[in-house]
Order: sequence, then C-alpha cells, then structure tokens
Amino acid sequence: MNINIALAQINIVPGRVQENFSHMLESLTRAKDQRADIIVFPELSIPGYFTGDLLGYSYFLEECEFYGQKLIEQTKDICAIFGNIAIDWRKKNPDGSVRKYNACFVAQNQALIQPNLPYPFYVKTAMPNYQQFEDSRYFYSSIALALEKDTPVQNLIEPFTIEIKGHKLRLGCMICEDGWAGLYPVSPPAILAQKASDIIINISSSPFAAGKKQLRREIFSAIAKNSGKPVVYINNTGMQNSGKNIYSFDGASCAFNAQGDIIAQCRDFEQDTLLLPYSFSGKRFKNTCVDTPEPDTIQSLSTALISASREFLQSCSIKKMVVGLSGGIDSALSAALLTHILGAENILLINMPSAYNSDTTRSLAQQLAQNLGAHYAVLPLQASLDLTIRQISGVRAGCQQKLALTPFMLENVQARDRSTRILAAAAAAFGGGFACNANKSELTIGYGTFYGDLAGVFAPLGDLWKHQVYKIAHYFNKKIFKKQIIPQGIFDIMPSAELSPEQTVGAGGDPLCYPYHDYLFKAFVEQKLSPLDIARLYQSGALEKELGCEKGITAKLFKTPADFFSDLEKWWALLNGLSVAKRLQAPPIVALSSFAFGSQRRESQLNIKLPEEYRNIKAALLK
Amino acid sequence: MNINIALAQINIVPGRVQENFSHMLESLTRAKDQRADIIVFPELSIPGYFTGDLLGYSYFLEECEFYGQKLIEQTKDICAIFGNIAIDWRKKNPDGSVRKYNACFVAQNQALIQPNLPYPFYVKTAMPNYQQFEDSRYFYSSIALALEKDTPVQNLIEPFTIEIKGHKLRLGCMICEDGWAGLYPVSPPAILAQKASDIIINISSSPFAAGKKQLRREIFSAIAKNSGKPVVYINNTGMQNSGKNIYSFDGASCAFNAQGDIIAQCRDFEQDTLLLPYSFSGKRFKNTCVDTPEPDTIQSLSTALISASREFLQSCSIKKMVVGLSGGIDSALSAALLTHILGAENILLINMPSAYNSDTTRSLAQQLAQNLGAHYAVLPLQASLDLTIRQISGVRAGCQQKLALTPFMLENVQARDRSTRILAAAAAAFGGGFACNANKSELTIGYGTFYGDLAGVFAPLGDLWKHQVYKIAHYFNKKIFKKQIIPQGIFDIMPSAELSPEQTVGAGGDPLCYPYHDYLFKAFVEQKLSPLDIARLYQSGALEKELGCEKGITAKLFKTPADFFSDLEKWWALLNGLSVAKRLQAPPIVALSSFAFGSQRRESQLNIKLPEEYRNIKAALLK
Repeated sequence: MNINIALAQINIVPGRVQENFSHMLESLTRAKDQRADIIVFPELSIPGYFTGDLLGYSYFLEECEFYGQKLIEQTKDICAIFGNIAIDWRKKNPDGSVRKYNACFVAQNQALIQPNLPYPFYVKTAMPNYQQFEDSRYFYSSIALALEKDTPVQNLIEPFTIEIKGHKLRLGCMICEDGWAGLYPVSPPAILAQKASDIIINISSSPFAAGKKQLRREIFSAIAKNSGKPVVYINNTGMQNSGKNIYSFDGASCAFNAQGDIIAQCRDFEQDTLLLPYSFSGKRFKNTCVDTPEPDTIQSLSTALISASREFLQSCSIKKMVVGLSGGIDSALSAALLTHILGAENILLINMPSAYNSDTTRSLAQQLAQNLGAHYAVLPLQASLDLTIRQISGVRAGCQQKLALTPFMLENVQARDRSTRILAAAAAAFGGGFACNANKSELTIGYGTFYGDLAGVFAPLGDLWKHQVYKIAHYFNKKIFKKQIIPQGIFDIMPSAELSPEQTVGAGGDPLCYPYHDYLFKAFVEQKLSPLDIARLYQSGALEKELGCEKGITAKLFKTPADFFSDLEKWWALLNGLSVAKRLQAPPIVALSSFAFGSQRRESQLNIKLPEEYRNIKAALLK
Repeated sequence: MNINIALAQINIVPGRVQENFSHMLESLTRAKDQRADIIVFPELSIPGYFTGDLLGYSYFLEECEFYGQKLIEQTKDICAIFGNIAIDWRKKNPDGSVRKYNACFVAQNQALIQPNLPYPFYVKTAMPNYQQFEDSRYFYSSIALALEKDTPVQNLIEPFTIEIKGHKLRLGCMICEDGWAGLYPVSPPAILAQKASDIIINISSSPFAAGKKQLRREIFSAIAKNSGKPVVYINNTGMQNSGKNIYSFDGASCAFNAQGDIIAQCRDFEQDTLLLPYSFSGKRFKNTCVDTPEPDTIQSLSTALISASREFLQSCSIKKMVVGLSGGIDSALSAALLTHILGAENILLINMPSAYNSDTTRSLAQQLAQNLGAHYAVLPLQASLDLTIRQISGVRAGCQQKLALTPFMLENVQARDRSTRILAAAAAAFGGGFACNANKSELTIGYGTFYGDLAGVFAPLGDLWKHQVYKIAHYFNKKIFKKQIIPQGIFDIMPSAELSPEQTVGAGGDPLCYPYHDYLFKAFVEQKLSPLDIARLYQSGALEKELGCEKGITAKLFKTPADFFSDLEKWWALLNGLSVAKRLQAPPIVALSSFAFGSQRRESQLNIKLPEEYRNIKAALLK
C-alpha cells in the first residue's frame, strides 16, 4: 500500500497572514486533487520568518492563530504539517510580552494530532541566535518549557502518529535548526529516530547563503543515514528582509532515502511541489536516486542576487530605478542587474562628471547605457561645487577665521552632490528610487562617503567582494544577456574613484589592491582574524596561503614589513572605527553569504586597541 | 566583628580591556587602603557590555582572560567579585565560534573561590533577549550547561564561601537579569537565599531608561524582603552603544538591609564608591536607612541625555559640532545641549533659509545663537535649488518627456540641500560633525527627509516625544543655564517645517497635532497597540483616557469618524512602511526609554495589512 506525500515549497510573504493562508490553501486543494495524503509546508508558513518586532503586536498574533485554525479546518481527507506561531496567552515573557512558540502543527481531518505533549503542537528546540537569527528574542524553546514543566526535554520531542487508510504512520517532525543540532545540548533528530519515527520531517525557513545548500544536504543526508529513516526537508522561497539585510530563500527542498541519497528535489528559488509516493510495506519512498550536480557558485550567487533584488523592489512597489553611472564595474553591474529586472524603459542612468572624470570612463558609461537601452543623462557637478565652495568659505568661525574646504573634503562634497542632490531628486522626479553601488570591499573599511555613494534604496552588491563583482558582471554578459552588454573596457580599466587629480583610471589611485585586500578583508570579516592572527601568519610565512591570495603578493605590495603593518593597521582601524558609523546608516544590503554587514554582524562604535602581543610581533619583525 | 565591603561603581569602556583593568586595579588599591575586605565590580567589567560581535574575535577573548587573570593576582588580602567573559576554548557554538559565558568571578588571595561548580565561576542563568539585549547571541547560560552536564540547574547556582579574619561568609552572587528572574523558569535569588547565603550580590550592567531605577529598587528590595538577607546591587556608569542606540549607564548602585530598605547608595551617573561595614554577629550592614527621594523624570532624562551625548562625542573624538538652526524647538534644544557639552566656541549654528522661512523663525534662530554665544552663519538655499531644478528638468526620460520636480519633491530637495550639501561640508571644514535634530514623534512616522533632516552623527532627541522636547528645553533654561537662553518665542510658535507656502509658523501646516499624535504614537510604539486596539477603544469611548491625552481632543481634531480612521490608518501605514526604511538609515539615537527606535525595536520592511476585525469596527462606526 502506498500513500503520497506532497512537499509544498511555497513563496511566503512575511506579515501577510491572509495571503500566506490563501496560498497554502491553494496548494492543499491541488494536493488533494493529486491524491496526496499528507502535505508539508515550511516553518512559520503563516506569519513568515523575518517579521521582526511585529510579533509584539497582539492583533498580528491573533491573526496567525485565526488563519492557522482555518487551515486546520481544511484538512478533511488530508494531513497538513505546517509551521506557525503558537501563543500561550496566559504566560508572559520577561519583557511583559505574551509567550510565543515557533511551532509545528500536524492536522488531519480538521483536528490537531496530539502526541502527548503539553500543547497540541511541537515546539522548536534548537534556537539559533547568531548571524541574522534571533529566535530566542521571540520564541520560548522546548528546553525552557521542559524546565518549567519539570520534565526531561526528551518528553517534549515526540513523533506524531497519524492514520491513513487503516495504517499508522509515525511522523518525526522538527523545525529548521533542530536538524542542525549537532552542537546543541539536545538533538531532536536523534530523539525522533529513537522514538521509532517512520519518516523524519524538517520544516525550515532558511535563507540562501553561498555554500549553504550543500551544507544542508550533507546534514540531512547524515540524519537519514544515522537514523536509517527517510528524511523530508522543506524550505520556502521568496524574499524576506531583516531590516538591514535582504534575503532570497532558495527553497531547495528535497527528500532522502534511508541511505541518505537524494531521491527527489524541488527547483531552486522557485515555487514547486513534489509528490512523493511512500510505501507502507517497504517503509520507504518509492523514488530512486536523482542527480545532484555540484552547484555553480557564481550562478547561484547571481540567481539569489536577481531574485532578492527583484522581489525587494516589488515589495517596496518600486518600478523604476536611477543609477549613477561612473564607468566603473560596480555601477555597471548595478545598472545591468536593475535593467534586467525592471526593463530598460524603467531605468535612468546618470553620469555626473566633475573635473576629474576621464574621457575613458565617461565614454564607457555612455556605451553601457546605449548597450542597455536605458535612459541616459549627463549632469556635471561643477556649478554646484563652485556654489558650495563659495557658500562654505564665506562662513566665519572664530576671530576672522573663515572655513576652508580642503581637496579631501571636496572629494566628499562631490560624492554627496551626486547622490543626494542629483540622484535623489532625479529618482523622485522619475518616480522611483536610486541604487547604492557599494561593494563589500568598500563597505568593510568605509571607502565611500556618508550620504554620498553610500546612499540609496538598497545595496545589491553590498555582500560581494570586488573580485566577485567582476565575476558576476562577466556572468551577466555571458549567461543573462548572452552578449557583451557591459563593455570590455569597464573590466579592463583600473578601479579609481576619480575624485582628485591623483585618482585616474590610468594610474589607479584607489587605495585598495583588491587581489590582496579582498582576501585580507575577508579574513577580518568572515574568518574573524584580527591583526594579531595576521601578524602571526605573516611572521610564519603562512599568510598568503591562509588568506587564499596569490603567492608573493605581499612582497610585491609592501617594500618593508613596516609598510605591511601600517597597511594592516590602517584597515583594521577603519573596519572598527568610522566605517561602523557609515554602515549603521547604510542602506539594506542583499545578503549572499553568512557574513553580510547588517543584521549578520552586530556592531557597536568602539574605540578598540591592538593587543600587546601584536605590538611585540611587529616590533620583532621591524627590528 | 566587622568587615568592610566596597562597591565600585566604575565607568566601563566597552572594548578597552586594558583600561578597564587599570581602572579596576586603582579602585581595588584604594579599597585596600580603606581597609575593605571585599570589593564588588559590575557585570562584564573587563570587556564592557555592548561589545557586539567583537566577541567573535579570539584576540579579544584572550585579552579579557589575560586581564581577568591579572586582576585575580592582585587579590592578596582582599576578595574581588567581578564580571568577565569566561571562555571554554574546547567547546564550539552552533555557528562555529567558541563557547563563552557571562560569568561572575570571586577571587581572594590570588586564587578563585570554587563553589563546587563545573567551572571556577558562576554562569549567568537568566538571559535577556528583548529590547536591546541579546545575551543568548553571545553567551551559554547555566540552563544549557546544566542540560549538557545532565544535572539540575540548581546545582550550578551556589553561594561562594570565603573566609575573612577566621569567619566564613557565604556570598550569593548572581548577574544582572538573574535578579529579574520572576518570569524565568529558574530564579537564582530564591535558590541563593535557600542555600544560606549571608549576603546576596547582584552585579549588573544596566543602562538608564526612564522609570527603570525605581523598578530596579522595587525588585531588589523585594529580593531582600523575601529572602530575609541583605542585598547588594552594583551597576556601572559611562556610555556604551549598541550601534543604533547610545546608552547612558546611571549606576545607582545601592545596598538593602534584610527588610528591603536602602541603607546606602552611590551617586547617579557618576563614578562612586561605597564602603559598607558588615557585622558578622548581626549578619547585617551597620548602616541605617537613607533617604531615597522619588526621582524627577525630566531631570533624570536631561542628565542621561547630557551624559550619553557628551561621552558619545568624546568616544568618537568629536570636539566640534555644527547644528542647522531653523528657529524651531528641536534644533534649539539640540544646539543648547551641544553648546552646554562642547562650549560655545566649538559650536557653529547655521540658518539656511529658503523662500518659505519666515522672519519670525529667522530672527528667533539668530537670537538663540546670540544667547548661546556660538558661531553663527546664514546660508540661503535658493541658488542651489535653482541649479538643481535646472539640471533635473533638463533630463529626458522617455520620448520627449522631461523630468519635473513637484512642490512636494522640492521640499525634500531643500531638506537634503541643508543637511548633506551645506551642513556636512561645513562640519568637515569646521572640523567636527553635525547633529540630527529629529525627535521620536517625527521618527515614528518618518516625518523627515532621507539624507536631509534625518542625517547626522547622532540623534540626541530621537527618543523624546515632542512634548518631552519642550519640557527638557524648559529644564535647560531653568536648571542648566539658569536663564532664558532658548527664547520664549521658540516655545510659543506653532511647529512648522516651513518647506512650502502652506507651512508657516502662523498657521502651522505641520500634519501632526502633538497633544494627540504624541500619545497615539506612544501607544503604537511603547504599548504596542495596533489600529485594531485603538478602534476598539474609540468605539467604547475609552481612547483618550487609555492614551493619556486630553479629554475631548479627538472630537476637536476629527469632524467625523471617517476623519479619525483615515488619520489613524495614515500614520500606522507610515510607521510600518516608508519610515522603517528611513530609520534603517537614520543615525544612532540616544536611548532614554525601553522603546527607542534602533536596537530596541527590530524592524523589517513589511507590507502589512489591517485585520478584518478592524475593518468591521470601522464599517460599523462609519454607518
């Protein structure tokens, strides 16, 4: 005897309870038509995952309860497994708010299945509180609940037993992080396997990050292998944001046989449904193994970038975008991305030359605009700069002393004039927003101007290192446009801000040498290495290998150890100093790694100092 | 026989491990000179509390361990109780980082006292994860540890027994939130009392918020009463920031007798030391009750505002500030505050009139500048506006269609021109930063312009409702300056943005009526009421009383229920819509309540809808 299990990889819109419900109901009705006996939805499929402190408002909680109940009423002849907030209105949290659980409900024939738990639902056990996750802010875990009930937490982790066509089936349900519980004090998958689950089911809401799909598959494959049970992994699609970061959810739902092989999978980044025939007698899914090719990193980064950007703009009702086009690679990719998403007629590209912009970049900008077919304008800055210089230098502050703008200050004046005088006004008049083209290398050390090139509706490239920007730009030409839309010249010129006579695309003048600094910054931000660690590696000769940058580059870049250390200290001070202030006021960043600036990295403005041991290593090497 | 216990209410600088250590060492040396037998320091006194993800860097953890050890070595002839990070380098967190505890160390005669725990320190039990607190992001609690060790958590909460002059003393030490544990599944104070502690000691790092001092005293007084033990509460002073918020720590350390009366207290907001004689025979402090007058709210808000602002600017090495002076109350208070902190010679006030600014406000601005004695300049906007209009309206986007700036867009152009063209450049040339004068009423609904009046180094008034801004401005005149520095005219004029012909200080034109909207917004943000709750209250006639605004004001403001609902919906939509985007890019706000925008309120950009029940109540009332 067989039954069918439907995996509903749906798009969830956070905060839109009624819509999510309707959406789930459609999937459920379709699954019934397809003779599914069980349908599985993702974690928090009714409220959405990144709803922030909206969870503090009781109307929202009531709405989630109401539509959860409505879904339960629709389970005649089908079993629905879904994630929702569960509320215990009698209990209060320490801040006075009402107690909430991140819960998995199992409903069949219009009633909840109650596996002998304190509540008629499973309560999430493993609470992630790192990177962008802060489950403990909102949810009471089964661990705290067990403590309160004075019972071992194992008693709160029970399979749900349902009956289909006279057969009993034990469903070992858990929620997202519960599956990643190797490093938590309690491991729900192990407990569920031990309690004779027939199928282990993980309902997730897990955003895309580079390399994460592979990791997920390894973890859930291991759960299948270790438990000897088939495993189902369901995740949602769509875009959600945590305020400072914008996430694409890649779905990538799949099922494993008891040997840990993938036997069915949903399409990535798209809504999809899988129908899995399960044999009662064989206690297994009837599908055979499927091909699971190694994902292409640049392709998946590009897909996540496009999908997050598209859906974020949609959710903000932004249909038109303005991009400041410098002739460099960042603004080129930003313009290409937005044109791909919104259509050339909805894109206005503006080149804003000052005295320092070369003919090369001006003509590259124009060529790109032409290739994209977007609206294009050239608005020079000089008149405004002259006016600002005139006004500021007329101000007296102190006895007879007048203010003066130095060349460095004028670089920032240019950058602010571009973004907040021209782009912001042009965007308003054009009926849209404007993009922030900053990349992760720049954001790391605040190489960008407050209210200048750091301004915008969102920063699509803000979680991409400079070398990734080049690769993705190349991918756009080759795979998205299938022709050289971004001119080769833009790839070939030397990066330069062109804000002073010293900064030119011929000579560079950019203070960053990306083939080294990209990797140094990645070590700072992603590997959490400090100058102390870097100094130790430098001392032992292992630095370049550890960073993953080209061999011999430090010797080429730095004539002496003194140069090496002064470079190192400068960037570390900026990462922890002024650039924190800049990032705090920067636009939301599309997160593509687990280490995006924004909600993945909590930052205070601190005045830190390098430790004594660092100073000792440096002194030894400078001798 | 008596001993002396010193409470060291010190200023802690987050991230500055070596300095905090030196500071503690000075206190310890002084305490020894004063014949103290025990010295108590606050929570996390070596690293500081708001260090963010710096806790992910091992050099920093090593430094904390190193200086913790150095402090232990200094405890010859004294017992030191202090908070520090404790690291178990062998254990990993789920994100791969090393396991950390928020720990209380008790050291005497150069060794740690070990009360039969898994580690030679007490591990914090109650982890706050609400408002700005996110202890579970960084620290493993004693609850998780107990689960791992398969032991009741009670076994991990033990008094430390020390010996002084041949007498044993049991010190029931806990950390901050552990004292607030009434709503947690485990209550350390009750366990410590039950385990025969002689003195209960709470080491805290607890930022100021309006009303919190009173609450703390009630809670710790109750602990003393309930346990029948004397209680010591120690908290630090100084400024710390969580990125988006700036906090002043008020200290307010004190000691209670076993009846719950305060018998000694430190000065608020200042470093201070208390020396408490304790009688072994009486098992009590020898001090008698002290006077604890009810704190004056406006005074404590003003003190916290001044102290947070002063120390934040110091920590950013900002010695000069520029303030855009409109002639209204917000910029007036901002200018007065900064002048008080930095001195008139370090303040540059700039009035930036456009065609819409009245003689009234221009002359009030000038009068204020004169009263403050600060530098003052008037820089008109018209030339820049004309240039921007000319440039933008020259852009073609679409067939023959040129861009046009509407009057509404020009309001934003003016605001951006002021902040990011003039103030930012003037601040750079003056050698300082510029202030964001936004108040909480404006921030709630995003009444302010992106990169315009929402820009600045920090927003000192961002957690003050408009009516509080008036009260504090009055307090500055009366108590700080002791004369009418802020001219009466600034209190008397009607608030107006003066950005269009409709907005004048005679007619107002400001869309907010503060005596109502301040209280509505407070209900949204602090009481977490939604339009559904507001509609229910309005229907039942209880709204004005519940909000705390003047009786009859809704009838005066809204001619019909339709007007009432359209106003309600407009602000709710803005609170949850565009204003979220604005706040995400807003400067750090000085937090003075438990509900400041920033890290106290996590916000996603969501597209929420009002629930059906709201629509039903509205329909019923509109009939």
